[in-house]
Amino acid sequence: MIERWLDDYVPGAVHELGTFSVSEAEIIDFARQFDPQPIHVDPDFAARGPFGGIIASGWHTGSLMMRLYALHYLSPASSLSSPGVDELRWLRPVRPGDTLTVRVTVEDARPSASKPDRGVVHSLIELIDRQGEPVMTMRAVNMVARRPDDGPAPAPGAA
Amino acid sequence: MIERWLDDYVPGAVHELGTFSVSEAEIIDFARQFDPQPIHVDPDFAARGPFGGIIASGWHTGSLMMRLYALHYLSPASSLSSPGVDELRWLRPVRPGDTLTVRVTVEDARPSASKPDRGVVHSLIELIDRQGEPVMTMRAVNMVARRPDDGPAPAPGAA
Repeated sequence: MIERWLDDYVPGAVHELGTFSVSEAEIIDFARQFDPQPIHVDPDFAARGPFGGIIASGWHTGSLMMRLYALHYLSPASSLSSPGVDELRWLRPVRPGDTLTVRVTVEDARPSASKPDRGVVHSLIELIDRQGEPVMTMRAVNMVARRPDDGPAPAPGAA
Repeated sequence: MIERWLDDYVPGAVHELGTFSVSEAEIIDFARQFDPQPIHVDPDFAARGPFGGIIASGWHTGSLMMRLYALHYLSPASSLSSPGVDELRWLRPVRPGDTLTVRVTVEDARPSASKPDRGVVHSLIELIDRQGEPVMTMRAVNMVARRPDDGPAPAPGAA
């Protein structure tokens, strides 16, 4: 994992976090636990449906994204929490054997007004398939610590 | 699973989908696969952090919600796809042993203008802890088929 602090998230910067693939067995295993709709767990049912075969649960795709986001974008020393995600969109189905790239663009990063030791990072996350088409997108918010040296300067006149 | 079609989603209706619990072993197992931040996988690191112990990955909590949503809210015959989720919020940490209730409120359900055999359901999903406090909330969108009998009437004057 990379050490990264609030000031290392530069608005406009684009981070390519790597790629992942997902197999039919992994899709079915995840979905049996968490999203047991037949489109995700039953190849015969799914073959007769609109996608012509099983597709990954959207929560599985998001969780696979999260692995790369945790390993290559967040940093254990500075990542405090996430208040949430906006505009999560599942744009195209994820099928067995698909390989997806995770690309993150820093949209905003600024210190907290009330807690000067931390700030808020807004990020656009995009999963891109091999044809260059977006498969899933979302906007994530993360609370991130400032580098300990980066705290506010003492108030003018302070001893 | 319940058979439910577009017209069975009634705006204003509240559906209690049941409860789930999550253990420390499950939290760590999920996070090792999908969100290997120390706050989710390392009890010693987490004990020194702001939450005083490990907490579940937000993707784990969402996936556990999805199980009940798939089993008790969606219906295999009518659930077509989900374009996405808005305003996903992680409001409180989920700790080992927590028990959460899933409550879904139908916010809107209307036929598609362009595809009369289906419609769009907007739902507010809330995970509530035993103290009655919201832990995670989101707004989900689902494409849902109309009951086959519910298609549009033939045009007036049609043979």
